[in-house]
Amino acid sequence: MDTISENRCFGGTQGVYSHASKATGTDMTFGLFLPEEAANGPVPLLWYLSGLTCTHENAMTKAGAQAWAAAEGIAIVFPDTSPRGDGVADDDAYDLGQGAGFYLNATEAPWAEHFQMERYILEDLSDLLFSEFPLDADRQGITGHSMGGHGALTLAAKSPGRFRSVSAFAPICNPTAEAWGQKQFEAYLGSVEAGRTHDATLLVETGALDGVPLLIDTGTDDQFGDFLKTEALAAAVAKRRLEATIRLQKGYDHSYFFVSSFMEDHVAFHAEALWA
Amino acid sequence: MDTISENRCFGGTQGVYSHASKATGTDMTFGLFLPEEAANGPVPLLWYLSGLTCTHENAMTKAGAQAWAAAEGIAIVFPDTSPRGDGVADDDAYDLGQGAGFYLNATEAPWAEHFQMERYILEDLSDLLFSEFPLDADRQGITGHSMGGHGALTLAAKSPGRFRSVSAFAPICNPTAEAWGQKQFEAYLGSVEAGRTHDATLLVETGALDGVPLLIDTGTDDQFGDFLKTEALAAAVAKRRLEATIRLQKGYDHSYFFVSSFMEDHVAFHAEALWA
Repeated sequence: MDTISENRCFGGTQGVYSHASKATGTDMTFGLFLPEEAANGPVPLLWYLSGLTCTHENAMTKAGAQAWAAAEGIAIVFPDTSPRGDGVADDDAYDLGQGAGFYLNATEAPWAEHFQMERYILEDLSDLLFSEFPLDADRQGITGHSMGGHGALTLAAKSPGRFRSVSAFAPICNPTAEAWGQKQFEAYLGSVEAGRTHDATLLVETGALDGVPLLIDTGTDDQFGDFLKTEALAAAVAKRRLEATIRLQKGYDHSYFFVSSFMEDHVAFHAEALWA
Repeated sequence: MDTISENRCFGGTQGVYSHASKATGTDMTFGLFLPEEAANGPVPLLWYLSGLTCTHENAMTKAGAQAWAAAEGIAIVFPDTSPRGDGVADDDAYDLGQGAGFYLNATEAPWAEHFQMERYILEDLSDLLFSEFPLDADRQGITGHSMGGHGALTLAAKSPGRFRSVSAFAPICNPTAEAWGQKQFEAYLGSVEAGRTHDATLLVETGALDGVPLLIDTGTDDQFGDFLKTEALAAAVAKRRLEATIRLQKGYDHSYFFVSSFMEDHVAFHAEALWA
């Protein structure tokens, strides 16, 4: 692991690191905020998965999360959204290839060789974090924005018992039913049908998130509202009678101005579960 | 004035606008955060002047200021740091020309034609803001970072009675005595000597900030610490017995991770003066 930068931030440290990932076969970069309390022993970890076009850097610099994480004494990791580099497949579209890994393990050429983001997050990066930093593996929560909100929901659904709490900002909710997800599933997995086991709404319907507290915020003026299919997830959550709060926030859009506006609530929501 | 974007943010609106400036002879872009309370009438205004290389956007997206401004019911304006465009003089160095206006009125070619940032801030942008938005001209504070911290100190010193409170993050303090300022004064004003009326420490020594509450934060690990000359300002402030707090923050550097860490304190400091 290489240290790219470390900056003092809200009494703790905002670091940026790179490491070689077996899952992706590439070097991967991530940000990690450690609160002051990490100097005295392991602290809880909140995962933040970013959306399309983002790197590890966007949320780290624009979401305002460190203020609240410092107040609650929890760490936040900001992974990248895909493998990157000259030898890695890509596409001219913003919603496929580098910057658009969708937090799944691709099975189709040319993507399968490097686009193994589910394994990267749940195994490689996870192993590194818990061996190299004072983080408590028994106290993990997960959140994310847009594609990363969907990633938070699906990775939690695929890791029973691992995450104590799940939240999302303007998540893609039902990708098998809309153009963003259909395109990505066809490319990465060969068919929309193959994406059904990686669709947050369908996973909720099977009970995969039963027992995990859930918080969702989405703006009423989200410019991608039709893609998100919030209504499908809301219906599935209600039908399943999950412990969940789904909020439609009046006048907010899909930007980091929206994300930062509700970050305090999300960090407090996770902290309650992580410190329980 | 043209509206470039408006995003809902912490219950208020983060806008970006452009307008033609007489002072600079160019179109200028700025960001303005209006809290929810602005819907009901004029609110106080905090000016945030950015540092070298920044545009209106850096602090607007990275300083985390809107959270605290919303809590206090005050607006924040984020001006650009210089005129810009193909017809505007520039320099390959990051610390001269576009992105480095130093908040002064240049007298020397090729800069004098457009680099009139003091007039732009204090007259053009000010006139526009108070005519177009619900802002209370009797309740103004000013802050900034690095070059912009120096701008806050000097523009307040040159506008007796206008700003109720002044603060700065890692400000350049005594530019006639260090390389950054000497280079810029020689270019924009023709000599370091001509910069003496635009040097924050020298202005404090003359009593130009008497009666204005002052808050300064600078990191002990600031990578530009030798340029800043914090010691000169601290001595001048103490000798003048100003109402001031100067804090050296252990382990912090010059980045926005530092700025955001202390933004809550600065907004609260200004709010106390602005709502008095």
